[in-house]
Amino acid sequence: MKVYNNPQRTTWTGLTKRVRLTKVSLDEKVREILAQVKREGDQALFTFTKKFDAVDLDQLKVPASTIAAASALVETGLKEAIELAKQNIEKFHAAQKEQPAIIETTTGVSCWRKSVGIEKVGLYIPGGSAPLFSTILMLGIPAKLAGCKEIILCTPPNRSGVIHPAILYTAQLIGITEIYQVGGAQAIAAMAYGTETIPQVYKIFGPGNQFVTKAKELVQSEGIAIDMPAGPSEVLVIADETSQAAFVAADLLSQAEHGTDSQVILLSNQMAVIDAVLAALAVQIESLPRKAIAQAALKNSRAICFEELEDCLAFSNEYAPEHLIVASENAEDYVNQIVNAGSVFLGNYSCESAGDYASGTNHTLPTNGHAKAYSGVSLDSFVRKITFQKITPTGLQQIGPAIEEMAAAEELWAHKQAVTLRLKS
Amino acid sequence: MKVYNNPQRTTWTGLTKRVRLTKVSLDEKVREILAQVKREGDQALFTFTKKFDAVDLDQLKVPASTIAAASALVETGLKEAIELAKQNIEKFHAAQKEQPAIIETTTGVSCWRKSVGIEKVGLYIPGGSAPLFSTILMLGIPAKLAGCKEIILCTPPNRSGVIHPAILYTAQLIGITEIYQVGGAQAIAAMAYGTETIPQVYKIFGPGNQFVTKAKELVQSEGIAIDMPAGPSEVLVIADETSQAAFVAADLLSQAEHGTDSQVILLSNQMAVIDAVLAALAVQIESLPRKAIAQAALKNSRAICFEELEDCLAFSNEYAPEHLIVASENAEDYVNQIVNAGSVFLGNYSCESAGDYASGTNHTLPTNGHAKAYSGVSLDSFVRKITFQKITPTGLQQIGPAIEEMAAAEELWAHKQAVTLRLKS
Repeated sequence: MKVYNNPQRTTWTGLTKRVRLTKVSLDEKVREILAQVKREGDQALFTFTKKFDAVDLDQLKVPASTIAAASALVETGLKEAIELAKQNIEKFHAAQKEQPAIIETTTGVSCWRKSVGIEKVGLYIPGGSAPLFSTILMLGIPAKLAGCKEIILCTPPNRSGVIHPAILYTAQLIGITEIYQVGGAQAIAAMAYGTETIPQVYKIFGPGNQFVTKAKELVQSEGIAIDMPAGPSEVLVIADETSQAAFVAADLLSQAEHGTDSQVILLSNQMAVIDAVLAALAVQIESLPRKAIAQAALKNSRAICFEELEDCLAFSNEYAPEHLIVASENAEDYVNQIVNAGSVFLGNYSCESAGDYASGTNHTLPTNGHAKAYSGVSLDSFVRKITFQKITPTGLQQIGPAIEEMAAAEELWAHKQAVTLRLKS
Repeated sequence: MKVYNNPQRTTWTGLTKRVRLTKVSLDEKVREILAQVKREGDQALFTFTKKFDAVDLDQLKVPASTIAAASALVETGLKEAIELAKQNIEKFHAAQKEQPAIIETTTGVSCWRKSVGIEKVGLYIPGGSAPLFSTILMLGIPAKLAGCKEIILCTPPNRSGVIHPAILYTAQLIGITEIYQVGGAQAIAAMAYGTETIPQVYKIFGPGNQFVTKAKELVQSEGIAIDMPAGPSEVLVIADETSQAAFVAADLLSQAEHGTDSQVILLSNQMAVIDAVLAALAVQIESLPRKAIAQAALKNSRAICFEELEDCLAFSNEYAPEHLIVASENAEDYVNQIVNAGSVFLGNYSCESAGDYASGTNHTLPTNGHAKAYSGVSLDSFVRKITFQKITPTGLQQIGPAIEEMAAAEELWAHKQAVTLRLKS
């Protein structure tokens, strides 16, 4: 980690820069994959799975029997942990349900909003060495709570041509049984356009590699909704003298182990705090199985000492971190100064991994500075809030003349006429 | 309007198709505009305004004196109408504010969400013959209520090189004073990248022509948030025997007059209702100043008779209209069957123009079937809901072991370690 001492405000823009990703020209490649899936349907999915995952599938849909068999293959301890996480995530997201409140804006003019689940949603769970079952909880639970009628899940088969039982177990636990063993840009295409086997959806959620990300971006421009733009994971920690160096170091490493393009930022108003954290970090990293990844991520990372905690908060708002940890016994004092962040962890015992797995908050969050404009995934992400209005004849008498006036000024005469006719009747 | 009697379900997909827009190849042109604004800043804006708006500007920002002078140029009747609309829109959108509720998901694990306004937003108001001041109310009022700190407005000057006083008056009425006289893709570029004069924003709102739409789509793929994908306006009316033919005809025309690419759909379970509406429509269209536009729009439009009202509702859900009018004395009976729509108008006196101007609901709504996945603009569009969590040592004892178990199963050892270290302490 590079260490900076009280950098000038003019340098902040540079210091908030994320890792510049190698601009591979994926556009053309991904467009071709999308086009081929649109054209050939299932056949293209078999072809791409053979090409990219080296697996010769005989079917796309995971059979009910395979899903049912998964439970026996997952250890009891893990199942209990997943159950606990599920309950907390359900509790937090269920509280996000809105009850329709009818607002009478004028006598006889009643307006309200009603949350209605998006009928068809697709969840994408990436492959890789480990099964990312936690993301199924984070996407599947709010989808279910929102009342989405059709929830499908796509995830690539591993080299042996199967899906990890923890994935299948978690999916069925929350009631998702339409699981397709297809990954990459081709999975996104299948959910966006539909194939003989995989139904088309209206919104696609979930993380993925650069192919998946590019595919989501491209189908979005064709009108398919997506959860949010993607980017590498990141954490920013603000630590004061009441923080615990070992905890902070562990939190930085738990972000750094995600990938070589991850970024961690440590801010403090005391160089002694930064020194202590870096010392603890140097010790802890040695025993990490993913040490090489963490080391590479730390090369993109920064520790910055400011004179005042207020500067730390101002810099953090400029950076707009996906995860913000306020490692201080007085963390709650700073809540009102936090303007840009995805998810905030207050105090020495609120570690990021709690929010990643089991505290109840969602772990699908805006990265790459997108927290300036985007929220993380929540129940809101799975509903539309449809507005309704009911106007009585009295109500129209109240607001009708204003509508006529405004419509005339905008030169929309039929708009005016729709009111005039009613007022005359 | 083409009339269909009880069409087979298999033909519905075709009948829900929108007008296929002539695919002008705008991509390259708009990319060039964006690049030039990014490169040359203000200078490019002067150049493009001369080229596209035929106006030789001497400054981009509208002077405070011009804004102040606008009020005297707007008629009192219109000012009163705008004030009434403002109050209703404020009332409806203010009710969308959420109070943070702290959820203790487990003893010692407190999680909550806090709505924080997006700091910098840009509103785009298109030019044209008439001043679209109503859209300023619809975007500016929730932006203000959300607590957005910097709200800027871009709108092109008219041929005389000025902005209509109703635009300036409405903007200052709701507290927007940073107004720039620039339009088109170049205005979107200016707000996305910033120039010497126009500040960069995090999210861009507002309607526009194909250049504006394409520019919003392109900057979105670069990470700037936008309100929603755009498309021509549309209304679907479900009318039963308790509807009023003249009212329904007026509502259809008030949509049809928007543009030649607008679409109106009339559904009923009785051919007599359709016949009566079409007869009223033929009379009313004659006196419309925008008759030619409405006639062209009606060519893209359809009247469909189904056997049952349930089929009308099912077809409407398949179409996912921007505006849905249920022209029936029993409209409220059908609310629970409405799944896909932007904004719904219930009963014979809830005309669409009420929601367009003054009832209080927002008129920036998802078109082109996007109501299947998107909501209209609301207070939500201008905030991020940041999640917070505070975990006590007791709380971590409760959920820590589950986190360790799950992190280990996902092979994220440092995630586990961040908990283990704390549990040991």
